[in-house]
Amino acid sequence: MTPEEFRQWGHQLIDWLADYQQQIEQYPVRSALKPGEFRASLPAHAPEAPESFQAILDDLNNKILPGITHWQSPNFFAYFPSNASGYSILGELVAAGLSVQGMLWETSPACTELETHVLDWLVTLLGLPARFHSDGLGGGVIQDSASSALLCALIAARERCTGFNSRLQGSDNRLVLYASTEAHSSLEKAAVIAGIGLNQVRRIGVDENHVLRVDELQRTLAADRAAGLMPFMVVATLGTTSSLSCDPLPALSALCGPEKLWLHVDAAMAGSAALCPEYRHIHEGLEGADSYCFNPHKWLLTNFDCDCFYVADRAALTRALSVAPAYLDNPASQSGAVIDYRDWQIPLGRRFRALKLWFVLRGFGAAGLRQNIRHGIALAQRWGKIIEADPNFELACPVAFNLICFRHHKGDAFNRQLKNALNDSGKMYLSHTVLDGRYTLRLCVGQSTVQAQHTDAAWSLIVQTAQKQSEVL
Amino acid sequence: MTPEEFRQWGHQLIDWLADYQQQIEQYPVRSALKPGEFRASLPAHAPEAPESFQAILDDLNNKILPGITHWQSPNFFAYFPSNASGYSILGELVAAGLSVQGMLWETSPACTELETHVLDWLVTLLGLPARFHSDGLGGGVIQDSASSALLCALIAARERCTGFNSRLQGSDNRLVLYASTEAHSSLEKAAVIAGIGLNQVRRIGVDENHVLRVDELQRTLAADRAAGLMPFMVVATLGTTSSLSCDPLPALSALCGPEKLWLHVDAAMAGSAALCPEYRHIHEGLEGADSYCFNPHKWLLTNFDCDCFYVADRAALTRALSVAPAYLDNPASQSGAVIDYRDWQIPLGRRFRALKLWFVLRGFGAAGLRQNIRHGIALAQRWGKIIEADPNFELACPVAFNLICFRHHKGDAFNRQLKNALNDSGKMYLSHTVLDGRYTLRLCVGQSTVQAQHTDAAWSLIVQTAQKQSEVL
Repeated sequence: MTPEEFRQWGHQLIDWLADYQQQIEQYPVRSALKPGEFRASLPAHAPEAPESFQAILDDLNNKILPGITHWQSPNFFAYFPSNASGYSILGELVAAGLSVQGMLWETSPACTELETHVLDWLVTLLGLPARFHSDGLGGGVIQDSASSALLCALIAARERCTGFNSRLQGSDNRLVLYASTEAHSSLEKAAVIAGIGLNQVRRIGVDENHVLRVDELQRTLAADRAAGLMPFMVVATLGTTSSLSCDPLPALSALCGPEKLWLHVDAAMAGSAALCPEYRHIHEGLEGADSYCFNPHKWLLTNFDCDCFYVADRAALTRALSVAPAYLDNPASQSGAVIDYRDWQIPLGRRFRALKLWFVLRGFGAAGLRQNIRHGIALAQRWGKIIEADPNFELACPVAFNLICFRHHKGDAFNRQLKNALNDSGKMYLSHTVLDGRYTLRLCVGQSTVQAQHTDAAWSLIVQTAQKQSEVL
Repeated sequence: MTPEEFRQWGHQLIDWLADYQQQIEQYPVRSALKPGEFRASLPAHAPEAPESFQAILDDLNNKILPGITHWQSPNFFAYFPSNASGYSILGELVAAGLSVQGMLWETSPACTELETHVLDWLVTLLGLPARFHSDGLGGGVIQDSASSALLCALIAARERCTGFNSRLQGSDNRLVLYASTEAHSSLEKAAVIAGIGLNQVRRIGVDENHVLRVDELQRTLAADRAAGLMPFMVVATLGTTSSLSCDPLPALSALCGPEKLWLHVDAAMAGSAALCPEYRHIHEGLEGADSYCFNPHKWLLTNFDCDCFYVADRAALTRALSVAPAYLDNPASQSGAVIDYRDWQIPLGRRFRALKLWFVLRGFGAAGLRQNIRHGIALAQRWGKIIEADPNFELACPVAFNLICFRHHKGDAFNRQLKNALNDSGKMYLSHTVLDGRYTLRLCVGQSTVQAQHTDAAWSLIVQTAQKQSEVL
């Protein structure tokens, strides 16, 4: 492809995406395809000869689009959003076009330094503790996801606890880590990967607000220590997956410091809210945390993947993860004056992900990002009041930030059927969780383009569908 | 950003990237910036109000470009290439624009099924064993890098060896894994992450061709078994980082099967060459491997990140890595009729990376990709003959595929100084390794746009720079 062909076809694709943005509400939110149906539309073998760009474009329309679940639709309320914006898409385009690989500072200084810089900007914007700023002993790095951030934190925590001996000897089977029953399942995955083992993961109970019970944590810690085990890490969540509940950071910080436990704070979804002064209180107590992450790809208009991960002691992280082959030596690394992000993450290579975040921060400004957060929360709170007023439904818990957890009164089977019917309709997409042992419907109002008209239409559809379902049963 | 603004600014950025492609040779290949210089050009705080798109574009030109080490320059010969093409850049643009998150089949069937399909296409194109095809018990998945692929293979191998008990109990300190002294450093990193420990990594010596010595492996295995240890994995390399040497797969397959060792084959760089029938012999013996990976982002014109990872027994991988929270339940997953790629990788979330690979395979066709492989190899072989004929230089080993390892006769310090002077010139960029204990210069000829004029100019510069350096010393 010559630069002139790139120019021509690039313009076509930009137009195609702009049209997609304008037409997105016409598509079923969740793809209506059956398993295997998409593959059946594809040729069995790769082409031997080049195909025309038009053929690819035609297939985008005729084959790919029907197979897409439209995460960017304003009628997508499932899971947590993976929200994008024009700025982030264009930032990703520039990153792909430059196509640098930022494993070392030398392999593109701007790739490394823009990342450090933008993550420092966010320390200020979110009111994070100064110890996470790169001008001290800490600093930030972009990971693909909160799962990977947690795994990196866990490795650093494991090594700090074992005097960096697990690196050499392998993991110690006495190591134990702690989180609430509401913490994300990436905890178990990280424990499996890191050779800790599921039996060494303690899930601590929660109170009526789905918040970790510090007294139970203390009792479990004491019992484990008495049994000769080695507690090494506590994972606190700001914004749990099921209900966006926030664990009590001040109490956990007060506990983890003296107990020499690595405190990791997973604020993947809720962290972005701290851009707004009225929600910044969620970070109270964070000054006692060893690491922290939040996901701009969830609620800061930056397309997946973009998780911002901070550590208070970057040396602990890099000492845990560093391996240094001769072929990566270079004068800048030897000078000690630069960051080589390869030592801050699981893989070696890395994309220039800071670009899209920089585009977003500049294109919206902090004010624009705050407005987007407040907009989603206002819509969710308004919707929550409507649900509360409906005699057939109940809120499963108070609306936290932009997440609504609710149920029809007719019980688990009814709610499951309701969810499937709504998703099958193609008009909206929601997900579920189990809260207090009960099947619970979840609506997260965080899409980039969602407006009151969408939440109102979705609610009408929910009411009508439940009504029909009640009549049939 | 409205769709109309996206259209307008998107067109501007496409033009900017097309211009970049046309002008790329004007820039110093390696950024000339000093540590901290880029950051010093940026404001200390994020903007409160939105900035104009023009301001961002101006900064791309004035600030970002000087901080870029131009991996896509035809004068970039360092490391292994991370090569891109117009097709892959545009595929990445579409992926960013659709911005789906493919953790589950349901969250975009096309994202999952296109990935399986394209990886099946590559099984045929590369002549990989049928056991890696998804129509049997195996299958392929896209990882960010060969490091992550190796880590996934290691976790699956660890679990298979321990009867899936390490998942529960934590890693077993008797586990040992094996690879040659020339295997990539991602081996140590994976062992650290997985709680195996560096002491449990055996680096086996190589012969005069930098190929793993199977006899030494056998002796080491026997000694470890005699010592009560648990050998569980061998990592073979097709195309080592230092010299593109290829380990003896037939012998390793014959050994690993009966010894019940997981054989992982890292073909990150060289695997792509198997597109050409004349290089397909590198895969002889691969039918005995449990897993395999190669990187289209190295030599298949697909921008980073894109590693294709295959397993012969997908159940071993998913059983090792799966965690299943209630909030990810859905009818399609429960049916067992679909792949949920979240269980094939370290993180939970994932981008639609198959799109760019699909664009590339269709845009170039297999014929075009073969032509690119042969072109790089022909240029490297030609360059190697020129170096061989120069009395001041020697090849450190025969040119393998597209990699030239060479040295000036004046020894390590001279070569190090030569490398730094060449890279400081901005006219070319090369890297080094240590081969047979000696400092060795590396030139990899795999860039998307490299032509004989570039290798000729680079060689003239090397000769002149060495000449000047000889006169001064």
